[in-house]
Amino acid sequence: MSNTFGTLFKLTTFGESHGPAIGGVVDGCPAGLEIDFAMLRDEMQRRHIGDAATSRRELDEVEFVSGVIDGVTLGTPIAFIIRNSDIQSDDYKSLSTLFRPGHADYTYERRFGIRDPRGGGRASGRETATRVVGGAIAKMLLAKSGIAIHATLKECTTPPSDDSTGGIINCIVDGLSAGCGDPVFGKLNAQLAAAMMSIPSAIGFEVGAGFEAAKMTGSEFRDNWSEGFTTSTNHCGGIQGGISNGMPVEFRVAFHPAVTIPRPTGCIDRNGTIHAITPEGRHDRCHLPRTVVVVEAMAALVIADMALIDRII
Amino acid sequence: MSNTFGTLFKLTTFGESHGPAIGGVVDGCPAGLEIDFAMLRDEMQRRHIGDAATSRRELDEVEFVSGVIDGVTLGTPIAFIIRNSDIQSDDYKSLSTLFRPGHADYTYERRFGIRDPRGGGRASGRETATRVVGGAIAKMLLAKSGIAIHATLKECTTPPSDDSTGGIINCIVDGLSAGCGDPVFGKLNAQLAAAMMSIPSAIGFEVGAGFEAAKMTGSEFRDNWSEGFTTSTNHCGGIQGGISNGMPVEFRVAFHPAVTIPRPTGCIDRNGTIHAITPEGRHDRCHLPRTVVVVEAMAALVIADMALIDRII
Amino acid sequence: MSNTFGTLFKLTTFGESHGPAIGGVVDGCPAGLEIDFAMLRDEMQRRHIGDAATSRRELDEVEFVSGVIDGVTLGTPIAFIIRNSDIQSDDYKSLSTLFRPGHADYTYERRFGIRDPRGGGRASGRETATRVVGGAIAKMLLAKSGIAIHATLKECTTPPSDDSTGGIINCIVDGLSAGCGDPVFGKLNAQLAAAMMSIPSAIGFEVGAGFEAAKMTGSEFRDNWSEGFTTSTNHCGGIQGGISNGMPVEFRVAFHPAVTIPRPTGCIDRNGTIHAITPEGRHDRCHLPRTVVVVEAMAALVIADMALIDRII
Amino acid sequence: MSNTFGTLFKLTTFGESHGPAIGGVVDGCPAGLEIDFAMLRDEMQRRHIGDAATSRRELDEVEFVSGVIDGVTLGTPIAFIIRNSDIQSDDYKSLSTLFRPGHADYTYERRFGIRDPRGGGRASGRETATRVVGGAIAKMLLAKSGIAIHATLKECTTPPSDDSTGGIINCIVDGLSAGCGDPVFGKLNAQLAAAMMSIPSAIGFEVGAGFEAAKMTGSEFRDNWSEGFTTSTNHCGGIQGGISNGMPVEFRVAFHPAVTIPRPTGCIDRNGTIHAITPEGRHDRCHLPRTVVVVEAMAALVIADMALIDRII
Repeated sequence: MSNTFGTLFKLTTFGESHGPAIGGVVDGCPAGLEIDFAMLRDEMQRRHIGDAATSRRELDEVEFVSGVIDGVTLGTPIAFIIRNSDIQSDDYKSLSTLFRPGHADYTYERRFGIRDPRGGGRASGRETATRVVGGAIAKMLLAKSGIAIHATLKECTTPPSDDSTGGIINCIVDGLSAGCGDPVFGKLNAQLAAAMMSIPSAIGFEVGAGFEAAKMTGSEFRDNWSEGFTTSTNHCGGIQGGISNGMPVEFRVAFHPAVTIPRPTGCIDRNGTIHAITPEGRHDRCHLPRTVVVVEAMAALVIADMALIDRII
Repeated sequence: MSNTFGTLFKLTTFGESHGPAIGGVVDGCPAGLEIDFAMLRDEMQRRHIGDAATSRRELDEVEFVSGVIDGVTLGTPIAFIIRNSDIQSDDYKSLSTLFRPGHADYTYERRFGIRDPRGGGRASGRETATRVVGGAIAKMLLAKSGIAIHATLKECTTPPSDDSTGGIINCIVDGLSAGCGDPVFGKLNAQLAAAMMSIPSAIGFEVGAGFEAAKMTGSEFRDNWSEGFTTSTNHCGGIQGGISNGMPVEFRVAFHPAVTIPRPTGCIDRNGTIHAITPEGRHDRCHLPRTVVVVEAMAALVIADMALIDRII
Repeated sequence: MSNTFGTLFKLTTFGESHGPAIGGVVDGCPAGLEIDFAMLRDEMQRRHIGDAATSRRELDEVEFVSGVIDGVTLGTPIAFIIRNSDIQSDDYKSLSTLFRPGHADYTYERRFGIRDPRGGGRASGRETATRVVGGAIAKMLLAKSGIAIHATLKECTTPPSDDSTGGIINCIVDGLSAGCGDPVFGKLNAQLAAAMMSIPSAIGFEVGAGFEAAKMTGSEFRDNWSEGFTTSTNHCGGIQGGISNGMPVEFRVAFHPAVTIPRPTGCIDRNGTIHAITPEGRHDRCHLPRTVVVVEAMAALVIADMALIDRII
Repeated sequence: MSNTFGTLFKLTTFGESHGPAIGGVVDGCPAGLEIDFAMLRDEMQRRHIGDAATSRRELDEVEFVSGVIDGVTLGTPIAFIIRNSDIQSDDYKSLSTLFRPGHADYTYERRFGIRDPRGGGRASGRETATRVVGGAIAKMLLAKSGIAIHATLKECTTPPSDDSTGGIINCIVDGLSAGCGDPVFGKLNAQLAAAMMSIPSAIGFEVGAGFEAAKMTGSEFRDNWSEGFTTSTNHCGGIQGGISNGMPVEFRVAFHPAVTIPRPTGCIDRNGTIHAITPEGRHDRCHLPRTVVVVEAMAALVIADMALIDRII
């Protein structure tokens, strides 16, 4: 677990935000897949939109170092590296002995006894770039079978002038035939939930009617049969008993606002003493626009993995 | 995956609703744990409360067949069997060639090419009894380290006379020290999400402030430091960067209403023709009260597994 | 790992030699496979041949409790139970505080802090009965694709009157097409090695020319091409680069003799004091004849798993 | 499986012999371990000894790109890259449509439908460099607990002038306390067997007395108790019931000779026609001396993983 995701189509990621590089290894991608480098570049670009004035400007050049020959996958591990450029680690030096509120500083130190204070280290949203690469390869694979994934920013209020905001991203998987997903613990919705909740700042997940379904009666909620094995509604979000039913798979992910805001805050040291600090460094006021492609990427990883297991692709 | 849950503390379950038995195997439970059989019986009883008039009345006698000697675990696999008594499979015979709306009939047949038509087979909520056994053992293990899990029914409207209703279950993990959870894909919230969404009828999951957090600003959401490494609020639900911070871990699970209701409905056959049917058999109008202990059980399995990995217990 | 074997076709086993039952769960067996109960009974019988005068006489009735309907697999976990009858645990009571030489008594106690003194507990060869059941199901699946596994006792000297002997079992997999196995750590020979060395008393494993190959020159060892993608020799045992080449897969497993012999021996207690003991209880003088089917079973589990992963079946 | 080895201490490797780079990711290494870069360099150098006149002269500069700060591990994935320099892929171009005898050319093409013809691609012994890096980190971790691993070349005849030879490598694990290893499928010897047989050219594996044990009687083979929980002999190779007993763990690995020799040979094309070819390119006549450190590396990976699982370290 931990830094590897998937059973047959696996993504292993690595890298600290301000270390030499981040990257990943896709293991289990079928051989003979043509890598669409232009599409990959577009996906990486989608992770750059948003709060342009303050965000970090990495080039995010993806270098493939294995698993691909003449642009075609070999069936062997596809490893890629993204160098971390534009690093201003000095911003964070003052924080190395302090735990910021709302961040993973304290929890990483408690978990590992040590932490990388440079830009959030492994806990930074920076690592999502590697998910986008893995997800793009998964999308290319799924596209061959007519499966497409589209996420959209559903709710995101304009952030106040000096503060941040969260939001909700909606995601739809089209073209997935019935029969994808496994019983009990291998349910498609369970895998999607794990995938989405592993994204930094994710705080809620729901399928189909989601939390609204808790207020419905059975006769309101139930998706009745219609023509051609479709249903007249899709309250279950295209998944029944953990297995896709051929309707679009639809889910939503809630994200909390970024917790680093340029206001004085109390950081705690190892002795438990609280210090007033005004954070420096660059931070997003709203990371939601750039998270849309990350949601798609994680969905693609789940679908590719389960579709391979269930031989749908 | 599929029918096994966990990495070090693993539960493998088996069984169809109306087959000879259901059961499970707990592998990785540390040796020397005393099994509290009275507590286990109470837990099983909690899965029986609720819609007493209509619900199935298995005795749910749990027979342990391995891994325990003189009531103490050996460190070897703990296998248990629950015989299926009180089976009235004739109720379902008429449905063997029809796919009910809202059920997993159609998706199982598309996934496997065959399905057990007796009482929902593997897709029935019946399998949750095996989770309660595995969860009870996990709870016993966690209790030794002062970790306790309590779920409560938060929202559940009285079901209409002939119809069903869903609801929301709230769950709190107390006593878990900081440092439980792993980076990136092994986040504690991600594991909890997968665990919860694998429960039949689960349709939404949120941690801490959850979907409400999407509407907050960063300064509203952020949990500021207080005395003794606690925080003044707990909007993050006790998890930061996927790792517990020592505050109570708190999350909610939304469940949709049962979709089998005693009203005429359209079932579809393999040719796509819809037939009007009035379901027979026994069904819950509100399964939420008996699902509370299932939520706790799955939380216990997650926490036991991650706490063993992270050497917190 | 531990008590589960395989990735897609998985066998989880449980049970102590003198506990209530042993058994297993096969997860990942494709749906629609007809269980050949007569063949299964024959396989179980093959595990009973050999040292009839002294060996334990369980009936080894295999009860399937899930995953099968009308003799056909459902794609859900196939659980089975074998009750332990004919138990004479009193034989072993005197040994509960002593560690026998050559046995796993001491290592289990050091690993778990506790052990089941009844008949070797989990470390007894008794558990191999569950492998035979899992292996039989794997064989049925492989037979549909024309893959057959045959092991034979290659070397086994007649045991001296009061003593035991080991031996070598040869195994051939016929009908496996080229392309089964995965790079680097998922090599077919590596999986077979793990499978074979997990059998009690296994102490050596070799593929094709095996240890003899260490003395050959490259020109002697190399299997040269012949007609129809066959090779004129099969020194590599049908596996190149960890992947089957279409020739028969051939390997051998060496087993050491049983270490419990009816002669005075020194057992050690927890204080390190050695006590002279003459073992009682029933023991095989040569377990090799009954181990042949266990070797086949483990080979079948490996081939079924890898063939499913590689979509050869 | 496939390109990832281990459960808690995991090594994922990637890279083709003549692609841009090879490398790996160590996930699960405990935080706070000091990386001994000089020792790592020595280990890499040990993989360079041997047939100096003909062997490839990579510099094998190991670049760490994550998981380490100021030479200390962070507990996050440790990724490393080794650039492939000194590549002369032209040597192999003529072979891209031909399958050499004794190589993995044909099996890779049958497995994946495509293969990298440059220097053996993923099937080349080149990938063992990444195992040496992972193994070196495992050794550093084990050294903190007094566990050391030493392999020696036991049998290796001088190769004839134009031909190659195989051999046997002996390996001893010192300082491993009793209690390392798990029941049934997680046996220490089973894990070691899988690890060793995954090394290119490995063709046999034995523990302790190994194949000789097959010819012994029980009274000859049995390791009798001596002072302080030691045994007077070590025929079982320090492992009983799959668990270490505190004696040195000892095993041997047999390797077949290299199959590429500078003599005319028959290569087969996709139509099954055999062509006479004299191989060019550089090849080892005896790879055994440089394989010694690879055997140690794989042993270290197994022991580190199991010792972490069993909390011996």
